[in-house]
Amino acid sequence: MPFPLIESSLEPPYVAVIFSSVQEPDSDGYDDAAVRMGELAATQAGYLGIESVRDTATSEGITVSYWRSEADAAAWKQVAEHAQVQRVGRERWYSSYAVQVATVTRAYSFAREQLP
Amino acid sequence: MPFPLIESSLEPPYVAVIFSSVQEPDSDGYDDAAVRMGELAATQAGYLGIESVRDTATSEGITVSYWRSEADAAAWKQVAEHAQVQRVGRERWYSSYAVQVATVTRAYSFAREQLP
Repeated sequence: MPFPLIESSLEPPYVAVIFSSVQEPDSDGYDDAAVRMGELAATQAGYLGIESVRDTATSEGITVSYWRSEADAAAWKQVAEHAQVQRVGRERWYSSYAVQVATVTRAYSFAREQLP
Repeated sequence: MPFPLIESSLEPPYVAVIFSSVQEPDSDGYDDAAVRMGELAATQAGYLGIESVRDTATSEGITVSYWRSEADAAAWKQVAEHAQVQRVGRERWYSSYAVQVATVTRAYSFAREQLP
């Protein structure tokens, strides 16, 4: 998916789950799990897209996943393999995190004109 | 402000403005403007907080600012000095960006127990 998400393809209202986190210094296994979760999320009902940025210098990250509805986002949280990874996250990978569920009501975007 | 934002201090509903961007290779002046805008935002009515992460390897960034209401977020967009910086951003700093305005309806957080 191109970054930033092309909102022109998404029609508000839809749901954004904002996941902010600070990683532990030792996050062994995290990268593989993140790739796997991205693949698994993409197969879920109501999945619209995901964006993720981490600053390796500060260990701070923001991931935003987009869903058709709150019910779709809630169902993803409950998927067994995802729930297991959330447990490992709390036990090992994250020193702290925050989750916010939000309804996007307006969206617009900008892209520099490509010069020939 | 601690990262991630301590949602326990924020009571939904409130407004999140999700700003996703890709920086140009030459972003001269950007860092100073970002610091100044952070300071200026914090003086606005309805300001609740801001979180920002950029991956210097990919030039991708996500900034989320939090506001008491959509009207407060809209007023910040119109502040003259901020509007001027937005123009410079389109002209020089960003190859693309997307803005999404969302209402946070649920929030929860996790922090590892500090061992003595």
